[in-house]
Amino acid sequence: MPSYKFHYFNVKGRGESTRLLFAAAGVAYEDLRHGGEKWKEEIKPKMPFGQMPVLEVDNQLFAESAAINRYLARKFNMMGKTDEEAAVVDMFSDLMYDVLTKLPLFVKDEKQKAEELQKALGGKVKMVYDILEKQLDGKDYITGEMSLADIVFLYVTPNLLAMAPNALASYPKSTALYKRLTELPNISKWLAQRPQTAM
Amino acid sequence: MPSYKFHYFNVKGRGESTRLLFAAAGVAYEDLRHGGEKWKEEIKPKMPFGQMPVLEVDNQLFAESAAINRYLARKFNMMGKTDEEAAVVDMFSDLMYDVLTKLPLFVKDEKQKAEELQKALGGKVKMVYDILEKQLDGKDYITGEMSLADIVFLYVTPNLLAMAPNALASYPKSTALYKRLTELPNISKWLAQRPQTAM
Repeated sequence: MPSYKFHYFNVKGRGESTRLLFAAAGVAYEDLRHGGEKWKEEIKPKMPFGQMPVLEVDNQLFAESAAINRYLARKFNMMGKTDEEAAVVDMFSDLMYDVLTKLPLFVKDEKQKAEELQKALGGKVKMVYDILEKQLDGKDYITGEMSLADIVFLYVTPNLLAMAPNALASYPKSTALYKRLTELPNISKWLAQRPQTAM
Repeated sequence: MPSYKFHYFNVKGRGESTRLLFAAAGVAYEDLRHGGEKWKEEIKPKMPFGQMPVLEVDNQLFAESAAINRYLARKFNMMGKTDEEAAVVDMFSDLMYDVLTKLPLFVKDEKQKAEELQKALGGKVKMVYDILEKQLDGKDYITGEMSLADIVFLYVTPNLLAMAPNALASYPKSTALYKRLTELPNISKWLAQRPQTAM
């Protein structure tokens, strides 16, 4: 087993998708959380793109959170068995990431935030969860077996629910998937034990 | 060899990255360009996410342009030889896509457009091409062998140059890579013969 170190800030943010992936796979890693002067002066200059998250595998550094997740999902057998299955996992993962780009997570102005949220709920959010509701028909996980797509779903959905607590009310299959994932022993344990952070 | 059909609108847009990938690999495909009523009534309901681009491989449909590109790059041996090489190709590809998200491609207001462009040029654009300039030191292609990362570079860079013609002036290695790629016989042929479209 390689040695995995995961470099990020002490927040959930983009990095939490990778931490959820490690938790789901039950694979050990060092959950390194940097900040302040040490990050700027010591760590940042060593990171491939001067940014985090970064995954360190036996001293090789990988950047870009979605790319990191695809790499790990392949190692953890959560990327399907064939190139075609991987493409399906990949397209549903990217579909879920698309939701995040439409949520006004960092908009400060309350009026603008409310407007953008309503637009997202009637647009991309509805589109994505409508697709999932169909896709989950007769399936326990998005692509059949548990995959990266479910982990990205598990990462994105709380961001949605934090802004719109009833967003899944008319989506019973997505609601059930969310419950199923959070109740998996490995994931439930992580959710209970992870560092409490504001974001 | 599987039968490839590529479904998109009659524009370059998101689809052009996949067309460049087919061109670079010298692989035949049907370049289907939909629009109007036929798209809305006949094609759209059949597409997995109700959107294009979509890649059809022996009757299986794949959505999400970046996922399509990763699938094809694997088939075309442009995704490295190991999982680790694939992760490096993937992270540089995503780095290039990041540039696009910062370019004000669809901003109508001229003043706002100019402001956002200046911000991008001093921010993400500078960051990315600074990284490339270092990365390309001693290499003909971004990750050594030609890969998906170079194709995404080739797709993104003209969008940048259309808005800021001198953007690469202080980046000799990126400029050389751009020239090298556009002069490859397969790519040069596609650039000369592709349908002329406004976008």
